[in-house]
Amino acid sequence: MNVIKALAARGAALGQFVPILDWGRRYDQGAFSADLLAAVIVTIMLIPQSLAYALLAGLPAEMGLYASILPLFAYAVFGTSRALAVGPVAVVSLMTAAAIGNLDLPSQADYISAAVTLAFLSGLILLVMGVFRLGFLANFLSHPVIAGFITASGLLIATSQLKHVLGIEAHGHSLIELAGSLLAHLGQTNVITLLIGAGSVAFLFWVRRGLKPLLIKLGLGERLADSLAKAGPVAAVVVTTLVSWGFDLQAKGVAIVGDVPQGVPPLTMPSFDADLWSSLFGSALLISIIGFVESISVAQTLAAKKRQRIVPDQELVGLGASNVAAAMSGGYPVTGGFARSVVNFDAGAETPAAGMFTAIGILLAAMFLTPLLYFLPKATLAATIIVAVLGLVDFHILKATWRYHRADFTAVLTTILLTLGFGVEIGVSAGVVLSIVLYLYKTSRPHIAEVGLVPGTQHFRNIDRHHVLTHPELVTLRLDENLYFANARYIEDYLLARTARGGLKHVVLMCSAVNEIDLSALETIEELDRQLADSGITLSLSEVKGPVMDRLKRTDFMDHLSGDVYLTQYAAMRALGPVD
Amino acid sequence: MNVIKALAARGAALGQFVPILDWGRRYDQGAFSADLLAAVIVTIMLIPQSLAYALLAGLPAEMGLYASILPLFAYAVFGTSRALAVGPVAVVSLMTAAAIGNLDLPSQADYISAAVTLAFLSGLILLVMGVFRLGFLANFLSHPVIAGFITASGLLIATSQLKHVLGIEAHGHSLIELAGSLLAHLGQTNVITLLIGAGSVAFLFWVRRGLKPLLIKLGLGERLADSLAKAGPVAAVVVTTLVSWGFDLQAKGVAIVGDVPQGVPPLTMPSFDADLWSSLFGSALLISIIGFVESISVAQTLAAKKRQRIVPDQELVGLGASNVAAAMSGGYPVTGGFARSVVNFDAGAETPAAGMFTAIGILLAAMFLTPLLYFLPKATLAATIIVAVLGLVDFHILKATWRYHRADFTAVLTTILLTLGFGVEIGVSAGVVLSIVLYLYKTSRPHIAEVGLVPGTQHFRNIDRHHVLTHPELVTLRLDENLYFANARYIEDYLLARTARGGLKHVVLMCSAVNEIDLSALETIEELDRQLADSGITLSLSEVKGPVMDRLKRTDFMDHLSGDVYLTQYAAMRALGPVD
Repeated sequence: MNVIKALAARGAALGQFVPILDWGRRYDQGAFSADLLAAVIVTIMLIPQSLAYALLAGLPAEMGLYASILPLFAYAVFGTSRALAVGPVAVVSLMTAAAIGNLDLPSQADYISAAVTLAFLSGLILLVMGVFRLGFLANFLSHPVIAGFITASGLLIATSQLKHVLGIEAHGHSLIELAGSLLAHLGQTNVITLLIGAGSVAFLFWVRRGLKPLLIKLGLGERLADSLAKAGPVAAVVVTTLVSWGFDLQAKGVAIVGDVPQGVPPLTMPSFDADLWSSLFGSALLISIIGFVESISVAQTLAAKKRQRIVPDQELVGLGASNVAAAMSGGYPVTGGFARSVVNFDAGAETPAAGMFTAIGILLAAMFLTPLLYFLPKATLAATIIVAVLGLVDFHILKATWRYHRADFTAVLTTILLTLGFGVEIGVSAGVVLSIVLYLYKTSRPHIAEVGLVPGTQHFRNIDRHHVLTHPELVTLRLDENLYFANARYIEDYLLARTARGGLKHVVLMCSAVNEIDLSALETIEELDRQLADSGITLSLSEVKGPVMDRLKRTDFMDHLSGDVYLTQYAAMRALGPVD
Repeated sequence: MNVIKALAARGAALGQFVPILDWGRRYDQGAFSADLLAAVIVTIMLIPQSLAYALLAGLPAEMGLYASILPLFAYAVFGTSRALAVGPVAVVSLMTAAAIGNLDLPSQADYISAAVTLAFLSGLILLVMGVFRLGFLANFLSHPVIAGFITASGLLIATSQLKHVLGIEAHGHSLIELAGSLLAHLGQTNVITLLIGAGSVAFLFWVRRGLKPLLIKLGLGERLADSLAKAGPVAAVVVTTLVSWGFDLQAKGVAIVGDVPQGVPPLTMPSFDADLWSSLFGSALLISIIGFVESISVAQTLAAKKRQRIVPDQELVGLGASNVAAAMSGGYPVTGGFARSVVNFDAGAETPAAGMFTAIGILLAAMFLTPLLYFLPKATLAATIIVAVLGLVDFHILKATWRYHRADFTAVLTTILLTLGFGVEIGVSAGVVLSIVLYLYKTSRPHIAEVGLVPGTQHFRNIDRHHVLTHPELVTLRLDENLYFANARYIEDYLLARTARGGLKHVVLMCSAVNEIDLSALETIEELDRQLADSGITLSLSEVKGPVMDRLKRTDFMDHLSGDVYLTQYAAMRALGPVD
């Protein structure tokens, strides 16, 4: 019996790290049919997306398909989200293009190898972060910075695809470079390409906005109408491919996808060139963190709807394994996609097995469908990207942050402007650094309120905001921040200025908002105490929290303090000055 | 009348930026004699120091003198401290050596030009910081990091001077490099040099520890005894120079100072080479900040003793002007020195004019004394440096931080080890970054306490630490940190876990320690509210501070909140659950 229990316990423990062992043993036919249906719908959506995002990353179309096969298996084994659909996504594809484009590589083969290596490095970084439980690092990307980054990336991506819609050449990693390059080549626009591209964009927008209501009006069920509307890109792909083939548009200068190798993904290995690793490392780190944040946001949103939990650090392992799998099978960096995960969820996926079935669907496409893609115009793929990413563009965050919090607004605006002006890597890095700097700056100049007793209570509030009772011989200052090195000097200057008043006998520092006093700040308080004592004023503390008090007790601070430490501010006031 | 008032007001305003206009107009004979006496003592102390620190920086000895003339005038005009003595100091000299040593310059002339440029750049940075009131940046250097850095620098400097005491070659910017290089050349030790060097070290230590008590015992006044003891290095210089000249030690392989140009400082210009500026910029920034921090610490300590105030942002201007002056007159980066400022203060200096008189003293030395320095052994200068910097070495900070605060300890230890192992620039940068990262890490995983009512009061404390009253249908959680992007997700997870308990009807978040709620955190609270509402639980806030409340009122947060916002936690408990 004990052996069985021990094995069961070990199984449960192992299930933490290999979640498939957990949900896999409870898998049944109901879940199977639900997962299968979801997989069919996601597969249909994912085929054109995978091709399009590979194009966006500047890679051969088949790499998009390869990135949608083995990584999905890996995530199904190691991931904790029941609905997350992994694969190539728009923002990560753009970041891949930026990372590899920076390298100035001589040949397409080098470019592919760099993409594979980038996926491998990103996978390693995610695995290391997972093993060392560094998932909290992603928390330093604030919501507004992410929102601004996604909006700016969407604009950048849409602009970068205009060249395919116009049938011209254009390069650049920032909006200005892209726009300049587009304008310079505008005269070479291929009208037929433009017709196909613009027509596809218009059609796809109509499918998004107009088709579903129309279908429902025509009497179809809401669910069926929704699924049909999701197949819009497939319809665009089929129709424009047929047109391209029937009218031999290639001969008329329309760029087509061309030969896409038929068969299972190749076994690939990353390059182990130290120079390449060091030039890709920064980009891989950014891709890992952005990918993780995007993935975990959608995974948590979907999990919450079904009261399920996801485990962020295990998600790192799942995504890390996916990227290593991508590197092993001719893919490029992947992560959990927002739109496809929502589709997967809405289509009823119950377990990560849905991802495996999707992977089998894409595998079949790679083995049998690729010859049919030969005549597919690149303009059609560009159109699917444009319509998808313009859905991400949302400047509402600027208004929301402007109204609520100027520091957040500054961080968002900087992220958007720098992403558009200098590309994704600089944009998001600046956003993260700036939001941290602004936070630190704020804590370095804390709000300090002089407080008095709210009549009829034992509660103390700001004398400038509330009608309160005070006493001329006693000043109580509430320090609204942790006391640490960055604000120690500011607080010392401020307190010395505020306590330079005649007739004062006691100063109380109310510490209800002080969660930490570091050594720099402790020295500051001791210095303040000495200076006040020279003027015959005592210094006391009140409402010091348990963890802070524990620390203070380890020093001789309390032996020297001219005043006392009071449990409550009310007790301090009663002891030091008559209350009424 | 109004014109006179306006002029007087303008004079006072100008006096803010050019403090000499302020104290200069009240200058009298008493102050003059006091300043003059202090200047004589500081000059005697500064002559060997200036020569020695130039040697430490790898520069010709006269540059140390030049750096002690015009910069002192500039500081006297623009600085706010009455006692600060500016000039070349040990740590900044070491940082200068590291900064310029990194450049691999071909000739001594290039090396000198780089030092002049470094002073100019550092001066510009300080001036810009002063004009834009960026003095608070220095606050991000915590006391423990500074203490660790000074200790490690002291060790590094002492080790770097051993080569002069031994009369051998040795190079390196880290303790390991230096020690290795010293060991490799140990066989070439010049015994006479060693006798002079070790003899000087022993003599100077004896002067520090034994001479003053001895003189007092012999009947001299304490003040005179102190001044005589301070002249120890001068005595060592005089005696060893005479010995070196009398026994022609140069012929016996003892390195001497040699030709030091005689005359006023030359007019120099920094290089305006863009490459040089960009390679020196990082070093100049570090030198500026470290120099500023060292300077302001001693200035504030001395000002506090006389109840004077210094103005940190104006100090930046004073130090900036000093460094620009150094660059214009053949000097190298300068700052306020600890030991000499204390001597200046103790000797009775009353105004910055003491600095001007010191500058005149050093100018006279540069004009007339330099030929006498020809035979001065470098070992003597090295000895004065070693004795001076070993006084800075103090590992007590490790013990203090270990007992009080592990994050501080980690930052200090890292600073010390990296400074010793990889040099000053990496050491201090790592210390600053690590202390910020550790602080952010701590705020990203805040302490959250469930609180209850302390009987007989209206005060709420942690249920785990105090005997308090609670109610089964109500849980109150005190969030001990600002709510911002870095901890928004952690808090959401934590609160969801803590509120998943049966029979719960109300959750109150007590916000007495919350000084900020940014947009990321606000979204988190709204999400938490929605999820709790699904389980029929209301969410309320209590003790929200004025500035935080102001922000919340700008949104529709309060319209959606399932519970209420209470002025006090006591009011929340009375409203939501029977107290007794």
